[in-house]
Amino acid sequence: MADAPTDPKPTESNPPAPAPEAGEGGEKQSKKGAKKAEAKAKKEAEKARKAAERQAAEAAAKASGGAGGEDLAKDNYGDVKPQTKVDAERTSLRSISAEHVGKAIKLRAWIQNSRMQGAKMCFIELREERNWAIQGVIAASAEGKPVSKQMVKWIGSIALESYVLVEATVQKPLEPVKSCKVSDFELHITKLYVIAPGPEALGMSLAVSNRPINSFDDEDPNAPEVDKTVDDVKAGVEGVSIDTTPSASMSTHLNNPVMHKRAPVQQAIADIRMATRKLFAEYLDAQGFVQFEPPCLIGAASEGGANVFQLPYFDKSACLAQSPQFYKQFEIAGGRKRVYCIGPVFRAENSNTPRHMTEFTGLDLEMEIEDDYHEVQDMLEKVLLHIFRGLKERCADAIDTVRAVYPSEDFLLPEPGKEVRLTFAEGQKLLREEGPEEYRNVSDDEDMSTPQEKALGALIRKKFNTDFYVLDKFPEGARPFYALEDPENPKVTNAYDFFMRGQEILSGGQRIHIPSVLEARLRKKGIDPNSQGIKEYVDVFRSAGVPPHGGGGIGLDRVVAWFLNLPSVHLASYYPRTPKRLVP
Amino acid sequence: MADAPTDPKPTESNPPAPAPEAGEGGEKQSKKGAKKAEAKAKKEAEKARKAAERQAAEAAAKASGGAGGEDLAKDNYGDVKPQTKVDAERTSLRSISAEHVGKAIKLRAWIQNSRMQGAKMCFIELREERNWAIQGVIAASAEGKPVSKQMVKWIGSIALESYVLVEATVQKPLEPVKSCKVSDFELHITKLYVIAPGPEALGMSLAVSNRPINSFDDEDPNAPEVDKTVDDVKAGVEGVSIDTTPSASMSTHLNNPVMHKRAPVQQAIADIRMATRKLFAEYLDAQGFVQFEPPCLIGAASEGGANVFQLPYFDKSACLAQSPQFYKQFEIAGGRKRVYCIGPVFRAENSNTPRHMTEFTGLDLEMEIEDDYHEVQDMLEKVLLHIFRGLKERCADAIDTVRAVYPSEDFLLPEPGKEVRLTFAEGQKLLREEGPEEYRNVSDDEDMSTPQEKALGALIRKKFNTDFYVLDKFPEGARPFYALEDPENPKVTNAYDFFMRGQEILSGGQRIHIPSVLEARLRKKGIDPNSQGIKEYVDVFRSAGVPPHGGGGIGLDRVVAWFLNLPSVHLASYYPRTPKRLVP
Repeated sequence: MADAPTDPKPTESNPPAPAPEAGEGGEKQSKKGAKKAEAKAKKEAEKARKAAERQAAEAAAKASGGAGGEDLAKDNYGDVKPQTKVDAERTSLRSISAEHVGKAIKLRAWIQNSRMQGAKMCFIELREERNWAIQGVIAASAEGKPVSKQMVKWIGSIALESYVLVEATVQKPLEPVKSCKVSDFELHITKLYVIAPGPEALGMSLAVSNRPINSFDDEDPNAPEVDKTVDDVKAGVEGVSIDTTPSASMSTHLNNPVMHKRAPVQQAIADIRMATRKLFAEYLDAQGFVQFEPPCLIGAASEGGANVFQLPYFDKSACLAQSPQFYKQFEIAGGRKRVYCIGPVFRAENSNTPRHMTEFTGLDLEMEIEDDYHEVQDMLEKVLLHIFRGLKERCADAIDTVRAVYPSEDFLLPEPGKEVRLTFAEGQKLLREEGPEEYRNVSDDEDMSTPQEKALGALIRKKFNTDFYVLDKFPEGARPFYALEDPENPKVTNAYDFFMRGQEILSGGQRIHIPSVLEARLRKKGIDPNSQGIKEYVDVFRSAGVPPHGGGGIGLDRVVAWFLNLPSVHLASYYPRTPKRLVP
Repeated sequence: MADAPTDPKPTESNPPAPAPEAGEGGEKQSKKGAKKAEAKAKKEAEKARKAAERQAAEAAAKASGGAGGEDLAKDNYGDVKPQTKVDAERTSLRSISAEHVGKAIKLRAWIQNSRMQGAKMCFIELREERNWAIQGVIAASAEGKPVSKQMVKWIGSIALESYVLVEATVQKPLEPVKSCKVSDFELHITKLYVIAPGPEALGMSLAVSNRPINSFDDEDPNAPEVDKTVDDVKAGVEGVSIDTTPSASMSTHLNNPVMHKRAPVQQAIADIRMATRKLFAEYLDAQGFVQFEPPCLIGAASEGGANVFQLPYFDKSACLAQSPQFYKQFEIAGGRKRVYCIGPVFRAENSNTPRHMTEFTGLDLEMEIEDDYHEVQDMLEKVLLHIFRGLKERCADAIDTVRAVYPSEDFLLPEPGKEVRLTFAEGQKLLREEGPEEYRNVSDDEDMSTPQEKALGALIRKKFNTDFYVLDKFPEGARPFYALEDPENPKVTNAYDFFMRGQEILSGGQRIHIPSVLEARLRKKGIDPNSQGIKEYVDVFRSAGVPPHGGGGIGLDRVVAWFLNLPSVHLASYYPRTPKRLVP
């Protein structure tokens, strides 16, 4: 909870935080017009108020100077200039410790909050990257230096989210500062210069940006998964108090990208995302994999013509890769034993759900099979367990920061040696026998629907105490042409899906490496082995002996979103791309 | 030279390598038709010969069985079956050492060469990833097991580049095997099964695939940089003997992607490429940078409308990102101090030169500037020096493998503390005063041409003994709208280019972080600050205070290509994309 803005009781060292600016956050889609107008008016009023305050402060400073009451602190504040110099030692907030007490430091930070206390004192909150924030105190001295009344007033009028250069002495506060991550120290400010001013009124305040998104509606009015508001979830989790700060829609967030990104919750999600990428790569590097780079621009759709973006390419036409599937296999054919790649893939699917994006990041691997395709399944299981355990270990703080906004139950892992692998048929049997009535109507030959998958996930969690499991031996009809049929039962394939909290995050399996077998399966699937893109693919297996191999593709956005149980993958992405959104 | 195919003198343990298959390699573009027909005929003949050989071997085996001369080794060879088992310990070629001598091992490898020696003995070369190859000996024993005459004949008829499972005893050869990387050991084969057969005739032999590419012509008949053949270069390097194996064109290579990728030189280049990526990321991670992922699909061209790929995007239109420039800046605005990204960028430029591709990998960074933009220049210089030194240290073998095919002089680095940074104007002065006559006509206000850049590179190499240097303070007219003009001299910018062997590999500089300054410069550049894509960009700096910042973008393909002095960036890419090529 350290990172969540709270409303502590006001004390001298711990003043009440100013009310967050409403911005466009609170509006409901149903009353859009009226609310929008209201918000706009409010914004304008706020803007006018701030401008007036600022002018008054400047005028006051000038007047007192002009009236002979010289501002002895006048060189200690103002807009930063080329000649501005602060000599104290540059110190980051995360490194401040007891040994700094009484010493002068220099720092650069955002002003995230400020409050005047009478005419001689001002409290501000200064923030660095990752929500490292500290309380600053500006108190005018009797002799007017290093801090004058004019200086206090000027600082109190600085727009929020301005970036400033500060000289200050580190002190112990009278009592811990609850509103800041650095609670055991405060800064007694002696110099403060504005490096880059914030706007008169913010489009979305930091407090609002750090609240759970209240609606993904503008992206799909019919998406069923988001009608449960986050506060309902929150209210059900014991010990979590409900924050009354207004929240905003995803659309408002994405229209205010800077404040969206400054929210501690978004920086924490980004850190978890990058840790996931790193954990994936570091595990595979240690297992003798080499990374490679598949192209995005390709000559023909690799995974079938549906859902592919096409573009004019000089005198030809190009597609955007839907997966690196063919290229992973080319690398194996080209003499690599084990490869992986991390990069963007594209789907021109007009799906406006919290699970879909048109551009997302794939974590893909492919490896030679020596004896049995379960070698690949083992590797995928191990790399994912390495990721999950690594996240819990390395990102505990970031996970807490996310949970303070989006509460979730801990992601349950199987005990070592007790990993859950069911065949697809066993999964269907479980669902038929013990699933909710409405989801029992499943077949061994057809893939499940998303609600059926989720129902099975709940059953498995209850039965095996894990949120992570594998379904193996998918029916032949549910897998693409390159999937190898089980030599002992051609109704199923040597292919599997991996699940997190009942939602698919990985598809994989053994591929066909013998060209005659590949041709036969293409024909069975109704695909012409001589069609564009397919012929070049089959030729690869004809051109030299290719070892048996298999692999899998993991959706990075989904891994992050479902690990944290976020309401949408869009929250896990840096710049989510949906059929309705290409900005920022 | 360990990796280059050679023609050692024949001895029993070191038989002559079979002549490489000509494939389509030797043909010249000028006599295309005739040569192609000839090659095709040759290929057909080879195919027929191989098929006949194979049939004869099978027939012989059957006949001797039928005549009562039972093949006692019949279970020790053949196509691999589900019940095939080899119990010896799985050992990779790179791990074979003196302690293996006399012991049985199991391995899986490609047959890259084979030669019958009489009817009772066959020599083969077995290869694993990264050109780890060893000589195998198959000798029929008097009693016909574990190896029979039939088995020898059958193995001798296996198509090259078939993938096989082998059981063998490790032995010391009579003398070192010069044709294989593993020269101090050989394998006495006792079992051999084909896992995946190669074709009757290869489209391009391994020997040809590992020769320097003889022409990039089909991609641009007028490209001046490739008219110098590699053998001319090679002939000028002392101690390098000229290989007479025919070489092939880039087009032939890319039409035979599997053999192109199996070439030791290509695997070495790929290893160097990935090491470059890793060195970049590891240095920045240690300096407090965080990685992030910019989108490829964007709403409007970020770097101007020229050279941008556009595509239909549902009811809208999308562009492919020409650089992550805006998004790096959004991350800084969003509260990150230092960010980097590694990913694809796209240019719809109809340039058919060895320096251009339509899709390439950018190594990008952006960071807050605390006091001076040279902080960024320092960081970029340091990360590149870390890469260059790291490559020399970690990839010495791979660099040797590349040099054996593409000879080059060592990439000269400045001595620590003696890094070369000239202003653009100083560079122009040097060129005017000491450059070749035809390149002296340069101006301080305009960017150089590629030949002028190369001439300056040669001058700097001579004068400062380095292939790596920086030109700072580029003229205002040569930089984009987001570049900050030098506050002391607005004719130039706080922007720089980095060079390797006289060719640009990085552009960067300080960006404008104050919205009013940005707007003024946009207007000066004739760009409407309210135009699509630009407005959203300027709004970012209006929406909150953004620290001063700068960065740079490095072309990964160019760094690899110029470090190795390759004749084209296309050789450094996994799947080069040019206006004329989208496959494989």
